[in-house]
This record gives sequence, C-alpha cells and structure tokens, in this order.
Amino acid sequence: MPRNLSLAVIAGDGIGPEVTAEAVKVLTAAVGDSVSLTTTDYPFGATHFLASGTIIDDEDFARLARHDAILLGAVGGDPRDPRLAGGIIERGLLLRLRFAFDHYVNLRPTKLYPSVVSPLASPGAVDFVVVREGTEGPYVGNGGSIRRGTPHEIANEVSVNTAFGVERLVRFGFEKANSRPAKKLTLVHKTNVLVHAGGLWQRTVDAVSAEYPDVAVDYQHIDAATIHMVVNPSQFDTIVTDNLFGDIITDLAAAISGGIGLAASGNINPDGTFPSMFEPVHGSAPDIAGKQLADPTAAILSAALLLDHVGLSDASARVTAAVEADLASRGSAKRSTSEVGDAIAAALAS
Amino acid sequence: MPRNLSLAVIAGDGIGPEVTAEAVKVLTAAVGDSVSLTTTDYPFGATHFLASGTIIDDEDFARLARHDAILLGAVGGDPRDPRLAGGIIERGLLLRLRFAFDHYVNLRPTKLYPSVVSPLASPGAVDFVVVREGTEGPYVGNGGSIRRGTPHEIANEVSVNTAFGVERLVRFGFEKANSRPAKKLTLVHKTNVLVHAGGLWQRTVDAVSAEYPDVAVDYQHIDAATIHMVVNPSQFDTIVTDNLFGDIITDLAAAISGGIGLAASGNINPDGTFPSMFEPVHGSAPDIAGKQLADPTAAILSAALLLDHVGLSDASARVTAAVEADLASRGSAKRSTSEVGDAIAAALAS
Ligand SMILES: CC(C)[C@H](C(=O)O)[C@@H](O)C(=O)O
Ligand SMILES: CC(C)[C@H](C(=O)O)[C@@H](O)C(=O)O
Repeated sequence: MPRNLSLAVIAGDGIGPEVTAEAVKVLTAAVGDSVSLTTTDYPFGATHFLASGTIIDDEDFARLARHDAILLGAVGGDPRDPRLAGGIIERGLLLRLRFAFDHYVNLRPTKLYPSVVSPLASPGAVDFVVVREGTEGPYVGNGGSIRRGTPHEIANEVSVNTAFGVERLVRFGFEKANSRPAKKLTLVHKTNVLVHAGGLWQRTVDAVSAEYPDVAVDYQHIDAATIHMVVNPSQFDTIVTDNLFGDIITDLAAAISGGIGLAASGNINPDGTFPSMFEPVHGSAPDIAGKQLADPTAAILSAALLLDHVGLSDASARVTAAVEADLASRGSAKRSTSEVGDAIAAALAS
Repeated sequence: MPRNLSLAVIAGDGIGPEVTAEAVKVLTAAVGDSVSLTTTDYPFGATHFLASGTIIDDEDFARLARHDAILLGAVGGDPRDPRLAGGIIERGLLLRLRFAFDHYVNLRPTKLYPSVVSPLASPGAVDFVVVREGTEGPYVGNGGSIRRGTPHEIANEVSVNTAFGVERLVRFGFEKANSRPAKKLTLVHKTNVLVHAGGLWQRTVDAVSAEYPDVAVDYQHIDAATIHMVVNPSQFDTIVTDNLFGDIITDLAAAISGGIGLAASGNINPDGTFPSMFEPVHGSAPDIAGKQLADPTAAILSAALLLDHVGLSDASARVTAAVEADLASRGSAKRSTSEVGDAIAAALAS
C-alpha cells in the first residue's frame, strides 16, 4: 500500500504559480507510485487579498494545519500598490504561517553547483547550510510608534529572544552540523552591540557545544560575516543565526551561489506538531510574471527539502541529483520555466 | 597666518597605532605650512582599559570635545578575553563617542579604484556612498533581559527611531545625493517586517524627496540590497540607511571594493557642535598587530575625509589623488605599513 502524502499548495502571486507548477510536476514524478499524493490548492496571496479583502480566514487556517506539509511559491504583489503597503501580505500570510505553525527552523542550504556561475571571481567550494531562527527576533511584530506623522514621532521595534526559542534552534544547528562532514558551526550575531540578545545566543551556543565535542564552533559578527561570505565562503559549514541576520545572510548566500533562482528553503517545525512549509527564497517578481521566464529550480529544490522532511529521503535525493544534472547540462540557451521542470521531471521518470 | 587645526588622535589597539601613524604622517604632509597642526594623543582602547580599569573618564571626555576633530585607528582587544566580553570597549568608547558627540551621520564612501582587485568577477564601476545613521536604531543600548541564565530568560533589544533623528539623516542623504553626478538615493531598510521604524523611514524619504526633484529615489530591502551589492553594485549612488543595516552593508561594500584595508569612514556631527571622528571601517586585527602588515590606506583615506570635513578640501583631494596613484602603482610586492604611508606622504611633498 502506498503511503499517503497530503500537501497544501499555495502558489501565490507573480511567478509563484509558474514555479510551483514545475515543483509539483517534479515532486509527483519523484514519488511515482510509492506514494498516494494529493495536493490541495489554496489561493492565498496579494491577488486573492485584493479580490476578496481577506488574507486568510480562520477556517482556511485550520484546513492548512491538517496537511502533511505546505508548498509555497511566492507571495506579494506590486510593492508600489498602496493597498499592499507595510508588508501586509508578507506579515499577514508568510510570517503568520511561520509563527502559527511554529516554524522555528528556517533551513536554507547553499550550494554552488559545478557549472553554475557565481558573481565571485574565485568562490571555491561553497556548500553550507544556514539554520535561521523563524519565530523570534525582530520579526515578532513587537514594535509601535507614538505621535505618528508628527515631528515628534518615535517608532520602536523590539527584538524578542527567549532561552526556549534560542536553545531549540541552536540544538537543531548542532545536530545539523554534527551530521555534516565538516562539523563546523558558526554563530552569526552582533554580540558587541546587541549585548542582551547576543549574550543569550552566545551563552546558549557555548552551553550546547559541550554536548557536541566533535563540532568546531566559531563566531562572526553579522557585518564581518558578509565579508567572509564574498571573500572566502568555503569556510562555512553550518551557520546558526537569528531571524533578521538569517534573512540578510541567506540572500547574500543565494547571490554568491548562483542567484535566488536556485535558493531553496524550508520553514520547519521539527516537532511535527504543525505542517512545515517549503518555499524558494525568492519573491514573486511581478515584473517577469506570466512570461515563463522564472527559473523554477529554487521551487523544485524546495520540494526536495519537503520530501526529505516527510521522510521520503530517497525521492528527495533523486530530485536533487536530477537538478544537479540539469544544471550541469544547461547551456547558454534560455529555457522557459516549464521546459526546466519538464526536463527534470523527465529525468526522474526515466 | 596659517590656520590652526587641533586633532585628537586615538590610535587604539592592535593595528590601530601602526595605521594611525601613517595617517598622521600623510595628513601632516598634505596640509604643509598652510595649517598649524597640533595632534594630541589619547591612549583609549582595550589595552588602556586592561591596564587602568577605565575606558574613558569624564575629564578626558571633556578634553576630547575641545579638538577640531578626532582621528581614530581601531579599538578592541582579543575577542576571547573575558574581560572584554560583550563589546565593552566598542560600546564604552566607540559608540559612546558617536552618541555623545552626536555623530548622526556615519559617512562611508565606497569606490573601487582602477587596479584594485575586487572579489567580484565583473564589479563594473563602483562609486557610491553610504549615509548610515549613527545615533539611533538598534544601537541605542535600549534592551535588557530577565531571568538571565535560566531556561526562562528573555532578552530584548529595542530599536529606537525618531522623526527628528531620521529626518536630519535623510536630509543629509539628499544633500549628498544632490551633489553627486548620478543624483540617486536608495533607502535600504526592511519595511515589510519592521513596519513601525520602516514606515517612519519611508515616509521621511518620501516627504524630503519632494524638496529634491532632481534626485531619483529608490528603495531596497536590506536582504535584497546584499544581492544587488554583489550582482550589480554600480547601480548604487547614495544609500541612506539605519545604524544596523548601515553597519552590515558597509562591510559588504568594503569587501566588494577591495577589502576593509581600503574602507574609510567619518562619524560626522554636521552641526559642528561636537568634533567629528574619522576612522577606518576595519577593526584592530590583533592577530596581525605590530608586524607592519596592515594596510594603512583606509586610515589615510579617513584622514582625507577629516580634511574635507574641516574645510581643507584641497588637501583632502590631494590625499585622495595620492592614494589613487599609489594604488595604481602598487604591484604584487608586499609593502609594509610604513612603506605605504611613506610613499603617499612623499608623493604629497613633491
Ligand atoms: C518576505 C519576507 C517577509 C521574508 C523574510 O524577511 O523572512 C523573505 O525575505 C524571506 O527571507 O523569506
Ligand atoms: C565595532 C562596532 C561597534 C562598529 C559598529 O557596529 O558600528 C563597527 O562594526 C563599525 O562598523 O564601525
């Protein structure tokens, strides 16, 4: 009897539907008959919000929670649309899901595949993973302002960090580092300025590291880390960092390893209490939407992370290998979004 | 009668004294007889703190305030020394000076000089300036923790942003952009997540931009900005950003334009109420200290910013030109710290 896999698919806005279609195509080909796969489409995103006035209602939220995992394309409309100002979709949908489903690990592997061109002249071997915290830090929405719109306005943002939240993330980071050949963990923070949060992070890494004698531990300030990332990225193995620093460093990591067209991510609830959510690092890119110009590779690699997360690690490895082969065979000829997906799905079927 | 110029010199720790000696040498050569230059050395830094138990006392502080400007090398000791944990020197000296002397503009020009090697394969023409806020944001030290060291610890950091502080910085940014040929200002923030601070920044830029019709205005999220910085840095002209994002993006900017050995900065009090302070972006690099290995170029270019700030713009331009010529003539042969300073000073004297 094939096992069941029930996925929620939020294709989203802009290029989201195009790249997600390819990810579903590849995922379906990868699991074949071994899995009874059902996908349920959810319409959430900027387009849905502008048409319906609702970002996501409680019933839909409850329905989402019943799936085994969520595949998300990209959400967000025209950034200049005043109805979407202040990140209303990003916060009301993406961050809401990450927080409500306790996606405390935001896992972002970075690999420079052979044959992929880096903007760096001599990148060396780039193969690391960023373990970004997903439910705390400056992302908690714990800010406010007074005297808004006056010369006396004061606007605060509060970064909230808890021992509970930091420790579980750091533990995940050490487990990850311990499972990798290089066994090296780098904490990235700004402990010399953000002393309260930084102290908690540093002390937590120090304490947990005692349980992982084989993992070498390193520390870099976020500013210095950006230098290392462009000067010598091969030094990195497992980076553990907070929500905001992780946001920044993973875009940079994507850039040096071939661009956000290739960067996958998983918003993971390791406890399995809630469905984890897999999405490319890139946004909805409204300017190129609907033209079959977007590279679906990041979405496909995110589907591979999904497969691994739900225990289908063989299928996951096959997808990654097929992507790697496809990247190696890509010439300079431009292929459409669906041509890339078709090629990878065909390789998996054969 | 030559005009007087009274400088406070804080050579600091590690490579600080070596690079500062060269900066003073070059500065002295640049002003020649036109200026009656006096320099007063102050011993502040990690070494001084470890020896004396004091970072900086109130009397010294008052003395510092009487100089026309401050030249600073680099401060900070061994990061693993527990007596220096939590950025005690960085906060107690560097940030204290920036805040007390109201250095609300942290000016960091980035230029990829011809003949300087960038880690980017095709950097293009890189010539922009970052106008980083220096007295607000997450740097205000407005955080705290409860239940420290227990599983229930909560550590918060508060980013404080005021209309007063943001507006004066943004105005400086527009003035700067307006004075440059490209006349383009890019706000870098994270308005889709940090909505209160981000809203204030965005509204301020929108409002002030109305007074600068010739300046084109752009916006990038900090994460996306790191991508643009490695993929297409020549798009930037004037970047306006907050204290933390400016810290991050200027290290990255330094990296892509030849490294922090070349990156200069000015902590500026545009009102002239307090002395402004000029320092290389790099740190004290204790590992290479005392070996004449450090490149003093960043310190020398910081001295050029100082000269410009105190109204000696001809001398400033001469230093910059001499540095540019020196960079162009540098072969692959390694020169010592003082050899670089000697060469540039000699060029100025001739
Ligand atoms: C869209 C935005 C809220 C999001 C984030 O900041 O986390 C994105 O940049 C990401 O990295 O997934
Ligand atoms: C030393 C540190 C406090 C400082 C900062 O974060 O501002 C440094 O990184 C800089 O950029 O001047």
